[in-house]
Amino acid sequence: MTGSTGVARLLGDLAGIGRDRLRGGYSRFTYTRDDLLLREWFTAQAGQRSLDLETDRNGIVWAWRPGRDGSLADAVVTGSHLDSVPGGGAFDGPLGIASAFAAIDLLDERGLLGPAGPGGGRPLGVALFPEEEGSRFGLACLASRLMTGAISPDRARALTDADGVRYAQAAAAVGLDPGRLGPDDARLARIAAFVELHVEQGRGLVHSGYPVGVGTAVFGHGRWRITVDGEGNHAGTTPMSDRRDPLVAASAIVLAVRRLARAVDGARATVGRMTPVPGGTNVIASRVDLWLDVRHEDDQATADLVGRISAAAAELAAADGCTATVTEESASPGVRFDPGLTAEAAQVLGGVPRLPTGAGHDAGVLAPRVPATMLFVRNPTGVSHAPQEYAEDADCEAGARALADVLGHLLARPGN
Amino acid sequence: MTGSTGVARLLGDLAGIGRDRLRGGYSRFTYTRDDLLLREWFTAQAGQRSLDLETDRNGIVWAWRPGRDGSLADAVVTGSHLDSVPGGGAFDGPLGIASAFAAIDLLDERGLLGPAGPGGGRPLGVALFPEEEGSRFGLACLASRLMTGAISPDRARALTDADGVRYAQAAAAVGLDPGRLGPDDARLARIAAFVELHVEQGRGLVHSGYPVGVGTAVFGHGRWRITVDGEGNHAGTTPMSDRRDPLVAASAIVLAVRRLARAVDGARATVGRMTPVPGGTNVIASRVDLWLDVRHEDDQATADLVGRISAAAAELAAADGCTATVTEESASPGVRFDPGLTAEAAQVLGGVPRLPTGAGHDAGVLAPRVPATMLFVRNPTGVSHAPQEYAEDADCEAGARALADVLGHLLARPGN
Repeated sequence: MTGSTGVARLLGDLAGIGRDRLRGGYSRFTYTRDDLLLREWFTAQAGQRSLDLETDRNGIVWAWRPGRDGSLADAVVTGSHLDSVPGGGAFDGPLGIASAFAAIDLLDERGLLGPAGPGGGRPLGVALFPEEEGSRFGLACLASRLMTGAISPDRARALTDADGVRYAQAAAAVGLDPGRLGPDDARLARIAAFVELHVEQGRGLVHSGYPVGVGTAVFGHGRWRITVDGEGNHAGTTPMSDRRDPLVAASAIVLAVRRLARAVDGARATVGRMTPVPGGTNVIASRVDLWLDVRHEDDQATADLVGRISAAAAELAAADGCTATVTEESASPGVRFDPGLTAEAAQVLGGVPRLPTGAGHDAGVLAPRVPATMLFVRNPTGVSHAPQEYAEDADCEAGARALADVLGHLLARPGN
Repeated sequence: MTGSTGVARLLGDLAGIGRDRLRGGYSRFTYTRDDLLLREWFTAQAGQRSLDLETDRNGIVWAWRPGRDGSLADAVVTGSHLDSVPGGGAFDGPLGIASAFAAIDLLDERGLLGPAGPGGGRPLGVALFPEEEGSRFGLACLASRLMTGAISPDRARALTDADGVRYAQAAAAVGLDPGRLGPDDARLARIAAFVELHVEQGRGLVHSGYPVGVGTAVFGHGRWRITVDGEGNHAGTTPMSDRRDPLVAASAIVLAVRRLARAVDGARATVGRMTPVPGGTNVIASRVDLWLDVRHEDDQATADLVGRISAAAAELAAADGCTATVTEESASPGVRFDPGLTAEAAQVLGGVPRLPTGAGHDAGVLAPRVPATMLFVRNPTGVSHAPQEYAEDADCEAGARALADVLGHLLARPGN
């Protein structure tokens, strides 16, 4: 089958929602007005395909084609997210959701769903995960972490957004009971296999000749906040020699982060967010908060690198009469996707490339608890988390067809 | 006279307005709700002293004790501002306004005001200048610059705040006619002498033995925006070697600013505000805006230093595959206060120290057009533009009495 899967049209439905005029691209933050518009669209698409909707205790929305006698057990599930980083691209997240709906259409066309299909009526689900990017509350994959117990409900409830709104308040505002956030073993137990489709966020497929690859692993990664305290003062009246300027120290730390990361093969370390306080043009800052993102395939290498960065930060801050405090905000060990499932998917797709990813995903959070893998769709520039993020229509079509092929294969497999 | 002038009580009235819980201190931005509360207080204080109020075409509020037959000609004027930098102190601005009211009380007690006084009924005015800090619209001393023609009305109208609100809109919202902003020679011509009292923003008086000094000059200073453009991308999937990270380049520029400023005797150069775009933790920034504040007593030294910083910024950005663009946002040449007036004030106060300042003030903007000088009140730490900014009550009292002495002397002088 080579015709249109409609995935480009589905993505096109979302093109007007959450555009960021300041940064370019999209800023779609969890439980904001734009996010609710995206959820309305999800609900409408599920309705058009006669999928049953449920929102679980952690705010994950599930769209089900139930199995025999309405059962949701032993299910094959796909899904992704609709939220974005600030000024993100159109594909990171939405491509997985749009491809899920397109794949259901293909499976329906092929007659592979429902009691009459070769799956004998195994349930198929589409999961929509909130706060995958952590752009609003600072912790990526928040809902899947809550579901699997990777974060405590108390910690999640206390997370705050830039306006000081707590996650508990934001969740309550959309009808969740903040008291019921947390581990959801019953729902996890339903999932026989989880497959997330995502735009590739690197250039692993560019020269491969394949529009689609299968994910093998997620690099370990984490976020640390570095707070540099100095002495606020007047920019015009304070001699250069009397200053304890934390922005100067923070800048030295940013350069050290790059230098130290370059020295470790395969490491990635980034400062993308930095806030001088108070942030006035004619004011020497009193404090600077910066956020460090570090990733490596080897968890020990990540830990070692963060240790070296922390030591350098303390030393560089002290050299300017400042202090630096490093606080871990999140740390996710590296995850290997289910090797059997990964091999099966690659085989169904005709021996496509298998590749790891430096990006975190809900599939990676679920992987320690349920058989999970990912499909990646070729990204010609490798750019992601930016307005220029891109995938060709033909590659998106190929991705949706690949997802249908893998889901159809899994539905037809003997159950647990 | 050594009793209380009430200046501490007057300042105390304002202690609850515009507190900044996030940064500490005060954030009082022009024409916001807090600013309007401060203006209500100003209006009430003027009313208690039977001062006539007028708001001029540029939003400067004048509180007048008119002269003979209601004349406002040949006036002695004092004044300052009530707006603050983000997270500023309690004294920068409000001390000058509170001292003005306290000085009027002292002059009234001494019987020196009105037709019966030795001034023979010369008018005395208190001027309240909006947007002195430039914290909302980015250009310091905005109203005095408009009044003197130092900025064009078109440029002022087009200035925007962080939310994209234009100055023209904000001015209209408080009842000004944006079409009438601009030079106001008639009001300038009324002013025979202008004296602004201000907390010192350095430590020039700390070891002098005097609580008050007289201002001789304002250093030339300016603000430049440096925009560093790079390539936004995913923090986890982009190898260190493939990056064009503008935050790395911007950090190198911050360090260069300090290095180059230190090499110029008496120069001050600061980056206190820096904004990575989009500013996500897991995103390599695509652009960083940083703001540079440079000051020196010698205007040519300022220009030379900015030239060297611009060249270094271009070079450092290029080294990281980025570009740097430097845009002048404001530049104010150095200003010398009226030597005769300065000498007179210092003499009236018994030979107190005379000192220049690195901080900009409305008095400095007015100085090329009307005889102007300043009084500085001792600041034990020199810290300003920060919550720790401080002046002892006794020094504030001494300041208000000194202001009354100087104003009383000027009122008694033969007119123009």
